[in-house]
Amino acid sequence: MHTLVLLRHGQSAWNLENRFTGWTDVDLSPIGEQEAKDGARLLQEAGLSFDICYTSVLKRAIRTLNIVQEQMDLLWLPVHRHWRLNERHYGALQGLNKAETAREYGDEQVLIWRRSYDTPPPALTPDDPRYPGKDPRYADVAPSELPLCESLKDTVARALPYWHETISPVIRSGKRVLIAAHGNSLRALIMHLDAMTPDAIMKLNIPTGLPLVYELNDDLTPIRHYYLGDQAEAEAKANAVAAQGKAK
Amino acid sequence: MHTLVLLRHGQSAWNLENRFTGWTDVDLSPIGEQEAKDGARLLQEAGLSFDICYTSVLKRAIRTLNIVQEQMDLLWLPVHRHWRLNERHYGALQGLNKAETAREYGDEQVLIWRRSYDTPPPALTPDDPRYPGKDPRYADVAPSELPLCESLKDTVARALPYWHETISPVIRSGKRVLIAAHGNSLRALIMHLDAMTPDAIMKLNIPTGLPLVYELNDDLTPIRHYYLGDQAEAEAKANAVAAQGKAK
Repeated sequence: MHTLVLLRHGQSAWNLENRFTGWTDVDLSPIGEQEAKDGARLLQEAGLSFDICYTSVLKRAIRTLNIVQEQMDLLWLPVHRHWRLNERHYGALQGLNKAETAREYGDEQVLIWRRSYDTPPPALTPDDPRYPGKDPRYADVAPSELPLCESLKDTVARALPYWHETISPVIRSGKRVLIAAHGNSLRALIMHLDAMTPDAIMKLNIPTGLPLVYELNDDLTPIRHYYLGDQAEAEAKANAVAAQGKAK
Repeated sequence: MHTLVLLRHGQSAWNLENRFTGWTDVDLSPIGEQEAKDGARLLQEAGLSFDICYTSVLKRAIRTLNIVQEQMDLLWLPVHRHWRLNERHYGALQGLNKAETAREYGDEQVLIWRRSYDTPPPALTPDDPRYPGKDPRYADVAPSELPLCESLKDTVARALPYWHETISPVIRSGKRVLIAAHGNSLRALIMHLDAMTPDAIMKLNIPTGLPLVYELNDDLTPIRHYYLGDQAEAEAKANAVAAQGKAK
């Protein structure tokens, strides 16, 4: 049996401002830092440890991981950062206040952009300052692979090759893996692991900072999964995430 | 031309207590954290940036690197941790107060252990709690490669394969490399780069937290090297390091 832990980064400055973040490299808020510390404590209390960590190239996920590693005294663990674990790219919505976007386009359209499986938001153009091709962290990525916007389906399509080619062989080899990433890149992994339908994954909300433990068979099919810590808190946090897209 | 930056970690809790640290996983002191921040500022002021980072599996080097990456907004850079960049292993001296050791064995003997090229300190036995084979971070290292104690010559011998096989090909490929490591693992690299004699390397003291810039030809022979920041401060810091082994 293998144990895999998924961890969604804590609250970021833009979660707080209710803006579409996507690939914008926004830092954790002080609450987000505390969530990471609390997540580390839950992992320690559960007696879990790790051999290797994966994260995105976005600082809110990397800092969450750094805080967890510091708290668990596991800074020496190998860490692999990869753009395929980034948050869903929100295209031209990135930087917009979610409530404003909802007032302009309507609650319904925003909910479709955020929660529909295959409807991408409006695309960036390559001359937009937000275009990932202008960022040195993506210099080694083929331009044809860099998104201008993503539906959740697109995020799943670019995240899963990293799971299949890199992470899953490492889990099969017996390593205990921690993945610190984002709501939608984690949804991509969960959709695959639990063979979920687009409808079901659309409705799944992952709370921030709460370690999600997957116990997997040798062939990596899930035996069971659960959040560490108080289950009512996990549910309340997931509901808070679901409510973010609504106009205020 | 290639630019390589070497950075010795800032002051640790045990530097402060004047103890032999070696592979003991001691954290930075608050002064050490500030040194890392100051190092990052010097790198930014010099207009330097990086594509990839290397460090040891000891938290005082890893946290120094983390702080530098945070301050420079480069947390997304790939980071490779490797035991071959660890500090020199001080064997049975690890944990002893340097002044006490000097009173017991004499200034002369301590200076030989710290500064002689090929005299190892007293060895650990594998049943010692300090034996690296008991630490999960070395689980993938062959026991025959794990030191019980090291002379500087031993440290050079185990650090250089990582330079030759891993770091130097990456520099040749055009990547800008930052190495955050320890006094003696950095001495090993410098001895090789500058083709120094054992006598010369024994006398070289590397100040903490001050970026050491090497400009290298295509074949990685040095054109020149210099510390960033105030040169008098660099010298004063190097002298403070040299004085640490003396009894107080």
